[in-house]
Amino acid sequence: MGASANSLINRPILASIHTQAFRHNLNRVRELAPESKIWSVIKARAYGHCFDAALKGLSSTDGFALLDIQDAVWLREHGWEGRVLLLEGLFHENELELAQELSCDLVVHCEAQVEWLEKYIEQGHKPFSIFLKMNTGMNRLGFKPEAYRTAFHRLHAFGCRMHHMTHFANADQADQRPTVGEQQEVFERTIDGLSGPTSLANSAAILWHRNALGGWIRPGIMLYGASPTGIYADIEHAHLKAVMQLQSEIIDIQELKAGDGVGYGGRYQAPEAMRIGIVACGYADGYPRTAKDGTPVWVSIGAEDGNGIVCPIVGRVSMDMLTIDLRNAPQAKIGSVVELWGDRIPVDEVARMSDTIGYELLCAVAPRVPVAIK
Amino acid sequence: MGASANSLINRPILASIHTQAFRHNLNRVRELAPESKIWSVIKARAYGHCFDAALKGLSSTDGFALLDIQDAVWLREHGWEGRVLLLEGLFHENELELAQELSCDLVVHCEAQVEWLEKYIEQGHKPFSIFLKMNTGMNRLGFKPEAYRTAFHRLHAFGCRMHHMTHFANADQADQRPTVGEQQEVFERTIDGLSGPTSLANSAAILWHRNALGGWIRPGIMLYGASPTGIYADIEHAHLKAVMQLQSEIIDIQELKAGDGVGYGGRYQAPEAMRIGIVACGYADGYPRTAKDGTPVWVSIGAEDGNGIVCPIVGRVSMDMLTIDLRNAPQAKIGSVVELWGDRIPVDEVARMSDTIGYELLCAVAPRVPVAIK
Repeated sequence: MGASANSLINRPILASIHTQAFRHNLNRVRELAPESKIWSVIKARAYGHCFDAALKGLSSTDGFALLDIQDAVWLREHGWEGRVLLLEGLFHENELELAQELSCDLVVHCEAQVEWLEKYIEQGHKPFSIFLKMNTGMNRLGFKPEAYRTAFHRLHAFGCRMHHMTHFANADQADQRPTVGEQQEVFERTIDGLSGPTSLANSAAILWHRNALGGWIRPGIMLYGASPTGIYADIEHAHLKAVMQLQSEIIDIQELKAGDGVGYGGRYQAPEAMRIGIVACGYADGYPRTAKDGTPVWVSIGAEDGNGIVCPIVGRVSMDMLTIDLRNAPQAKIGSVVELWGDRIPVDEVARMSDTIGYELLCAVAPRVPVAIK
Repeated sequence: MGASANSLINRPILASIHTQAFRHNLNRVRELAPESKIWSVIKARAYGHCFDAALKGLSSTDGFALLDIQDAVWLREHGWEGRVLLLEGLFHENELELAQELSCDLVVHCEAQVEWLEKYIEQGHKPFSIFLKMNTGMNRLGFKPEAYRTAFHRLHAFGCRMHHMTHFANADQADQRPTVGEQQEVFERTIDGLSGPTSLANSAAILWHRNALGGWIRPGIMLYGASPTGIYADIEHAHLKAVMQLQSEIIDIQELKAGDGVGYGGRYQAPEAMRIGIVACGYADGYPRTAKDGTPVWVSIGAEDGNGIVCPIVGRVSMDMLTIDLRNAPQAKIGSVVELWGDRIPVDEVARMSDTIGYELLCAVAPRVPVAIK
């Protein structure tokens, strides 16, 4: 029991993480912003891709940006000697010592964090490298422009190495305010005459607002090969590669008569006699329960890799299974491999059919799904 | 680095699992179905509550039902000696040996599984205890009635201990077909004259169709204190207790002017000058990105536990944060504790405001959220 051979026995679902695609996407970022240094954003277990894979695939980055200080611990324990940025800074004063031990760069976004730092440095500790966050219109974290310069001078006076940072609310859409230009203008005006490098651009700005990059850019979703807008067409010509491929298998087939309902609530009614495939993947694996009928699933139909047919979802996704229309895939059988998303089915397309964005789906891949780093 | 004191330092988000609530809910199931044995359904890491907590809180169950054979391994390694049911049976023939070693009960839902068992027992192995699954109208897993009796006789002839099982498509709604009554009638007619106990009821049937229980019931969602329909009002009088409480803290506060937008896309526009709180919980923690403005969040406003105010979400939930309207909670400050769901905010209410059901939210709580078993 628990022998290593046995531990390979699992439900037939698998998330494969392609580190070569990570490398490719990071190179694309460098091509788009050759003058900037790169914080590769790997919060949320590298958007669901797992830290091991991110560290392997993104090792040529200038730094990793993340949220939980425990993840910074993990990076140091696994040999990462480059820079590490805590994107929301410290949550509590008791993290100061650990952050210093780990040589973290810190975001500072509120008055309390400034006070913790002043007190700590006053006690004789080394000053930190700081990314001071300005709220230029996102209205989430950060100092309002009128409070920003005071915070800057306070930390600067304590010897901190200062950087200026803001975050765009609408770099992924042209018709929303505040626009990138408006936020950028507030930012530039506020830091006028202050020293220190800047950090502005997320993935959307790197792709579409290349006059708003700053010295340090912060690519996230594009490193994973998905779209900042949630719409795949928007990145189709950016030459990014999907890093995650989520696969499973058909575990049963049902022959329906015309009028038969499928699954909970019988949302789909068979219009004629037809075959459906039951796939071992459900919302408890991270596949969205909100996926509509018609959401594409790729079904392998041959021994050769790459030989397959796209079959639409029919009926509501349940906790552990989903059901697909096999009328166009008479070759499909129990054991046929399916791709839920990856190279063939963009995660953004599944997201669009589920009224959300690829980010949410990637992050939501469940711990029960085994991961293979390739 | 990595010292044990340091490992307690985390983002201020926490999922507390109340094992006493597990006990309470299991007792409620016993009261509702005193004649039946209970398979406590703990697939998907016990609907996101973690196996340790489930084993602790549900130890008086008659058996645990789950999906992944590796989870059965975990249960045996942690001392569970009672019955374990693999709810979808074996995914591959190579699981047979491990399943026998673990003394699992197996669901059998398709021809291929019957063949694997015949071959295996023919080789001199012991027969299994089987829950033979009939597709009575759900059209997901199971034998059609016309194929069911043949499968039954084949496995019975090989010495298997046989049980009859089906699953309801609409036990949670009265106006959908097939109805519980229709499925039950197909089931009873098909097993007429065959020996063996039955297993029919999920949580919805246990609550609302008590003539359709069977010898073994399979409560899932009700053990976790959430509603089979996704609507909290439907279980308000069933005296169930929320097992999971998801908490976080306000990590920043912004003062808005009338007309200011909040977060990505500026979905919420401040109607007047107002304070908003930034909460350290986002969709990468498992909180639904689809949550609408108005979704309730409970904010602690006093030293005393239980002293709080419900504040509505304003603006789109982002990956690591959400934003709430603090106009009714002038006492709220950075560090104020919030409950995202639990005793005060039913998970079903958050789900309803996000166009899904509590099941999905509970299962989706992310690995990065620390768990405290209480």
